[in-house]
Amino acid sequence: MRALVLNDRLSLVSNYPDPRPAPGESLVRVKLAGICGTDLELIRGYMTYRGVPGHEFVGEVVASPNQTLVGQRVAGEINAACGRCSACVDGLGRHCANRSVLGIVARDGAFADYLTLPECNLRPLPEAITDEAAVFVEPIAAAYEIFDQIPLRRDAKILVLGDGRLGAIVATVLKAEAYKPIVGGHHLAKLKRLQALGLKVELEDKLQSGFDVVVDCTGNSAGINRALALVRPRGSLILKSTAAAAAPLNLAPIVINEVTVVGSRCGRFEPAIEAIASGKVDPRPFIDGTYPLDDFDSAFKAAMDPSNFKILLRM
Amino acid sequence: MRALVLNDRLSLVSNYPDPRPAPGESLVRVKLAGICGTDLELIRGYMTYRGVPGHEFVGEVVASPNQTLVGQRVAGEINAACGRCSACVDGLGRHCANRSVLGIVARDGAFADYLTLPECNLRPLPEAITDEAAVFVEPIAAAYEIFDQIPLRRDAKILVLGDGRLGAIVATVLKAEAYKPIVGGHHLAKLKRLQALGLKVELEDKLQSGFDVVVDCTGNSAGINRALALVRPRGSLILKSTAAAAAPLNLAPIVINEVTVVGSRCGRFEPAIEAIASGKVDPRPFIDGTYPLDDFDSAFKAAMDPSNFKILLRM
Repeated sequence: MRALVLNDRLSLVSNYPDPRPAPGESLVRVKLAGICGTDLELIRGYMTYRGVPGHEFVGEVVASPNQTLVGQRVAGEINAACGRCSACVDGLGRHCANRSVLGIVARDGAFADYLTLPECNLRPLPEAITDEAAVFVEPIAAAYEIFDQIPLRRDAKILVLGDGRLGAIVATVLKAEAYKPIVGGHHLAKLKRLQALGLKVELEDKLQSGFDVVVDCTGNSAGINRALALVRPRGSLILKSTAAAAAPLNLAPIVINEVTVVGSRCGRFEPAIEAIASGKVDPRPFIDGTYPLDDFDSAFKAAMDPSNFKILLRM
Repeated sequence: MRALVLNDRLSLVSNYPDPRPAPGESLVRVKLAGICGTDLELIRGYMTYRGVPGHEFVGEVVASPNQTLVGQRVAGEINAACGRCSACVDGLGRHCANRSVLGIVARDGAFADYLTLPECNLRPLPEAITDEAAVFVEPIAAAYEIFDQIPLRRDAKILVLGDGRLGAIVATVLKAEAYKPIVGGHHLAKLKRLQALGLKVELEDKLQSGFDVVVDCTGNSAGINRALALVRPRGSLILKSTAAAAAPLNLAPIVINEVTVVGSRCGRFEPAIEAIASGKVDPRPFIDGTYPLDDFDSAFKAAMDPSNFKILLRM
């Protein structure tokens, strides 16, 4: 099969071996996949991942131990858990210490014609969800994860710091759930697009401290220090983005202002699928280009261009 | 009056001007004061504080707009709030942006014959509390602050990282409140003393990851990274110590393991006073020396010696 393979650099391999499903796993033909900030970090060396990246996808099940899944259109939870460790027994399979993670840790990902995932990771998609929207199930689920982690008052003064693809999705979900987030960033064109979608926006250097909750979607350490400066005493800072490098962080403000910092990663797919299917969340305005897999070079160039939100790859 | 004054270095000034109480403030004659890790940080340049340090004290009110206070033995909350800003109106005076902090920010502290504090900061002490124990009201209140911030299950696997004065107090309070903390450190003699007081202890390099809650009392950035490595996925890291320097912190584990980091500082005095008065918490075994103010040099040498817990100054 064709696959984008990350070794020292990313390259297209036309005769990459087809993945063979392990017991309990399904084989999925990938239709469409999204390029995420984490993919760009992986290419820069984050997690020292080697293999096929890609973890946001929609595909069709071509083989499965569960016959009812075969032929179904699915999205897939990306953490493949062992099912036996203490985290798994506690229902925290997404934190299983033995897990592989699609396209991120020890499991080839979605930038290829086929992938494998445990049957229990696959989520059949209702017809109301287009392929284009389905690619966003994973990042939208990650945005919904916030609600599973901390209580959030509807009248909270919330700042989403970062006007990139992650910030756009997080702010869209917050607004869909009747919150009133402000998106702070420094890309004027993107802020205008977000504003046209009904979001409140503000240039970053005009932001004033005092937010009850700041969601850091900047993906860099300077952003995290800025986020810390914008949250009020006893407020919450939600870290949504992983960054490759250790950040020189001045921790004193966390203690002095008694800030709660919440690391937040992947989420359950169910609320995301419901929100997209009902039309409550429509991520398609954030698609800035769809490229055939063979033109991955143009796709990644576009994904790295800070004026774009989301770039898709079609297999 | 006599006062220890921090400029480029700490020195004893015998004719420092007596503090003059502002409207609403009381004048307190200091009897006994404790040397805290924050004082040692201030001497190293933290917060660029200049003036009289010291914020753990017991004293006697000699003048007050509230006549019933005069002659009373008191401890004092260290944050002097403006009472008018949004934090104050929200009942978060300890986070007032305009506050001064006794011996830490813009207010001379307790290493002197006299200090001033707003009348509402003073807490009369029951007779059951000795002067020596009363000096610990402030740090014990800071330990009790944890319970005001996060729900903590009695069966939680709790690690107090750091076997210094702060770790000893935090672990003692947790044990008094029917938790079963383990103190991790690398000072064998201190760990043995803590063990003799009924606390569970463990050498730091023998600690295994998987704690539900880690309370960082190390006071250094290496300790915080170590604490992060010891907390389980979805667990909590409570930061109790402020450190002067920005710490190079690898934030990825916070996001990947969805750890909640809670900054925790000063607390309400009431639970601390109750706990000491009832005998539930007795901090006196941690006193490793009481020095007259005039011998502050020996006192600070002893406080900097990592084999000691708490050193007191008698005025």
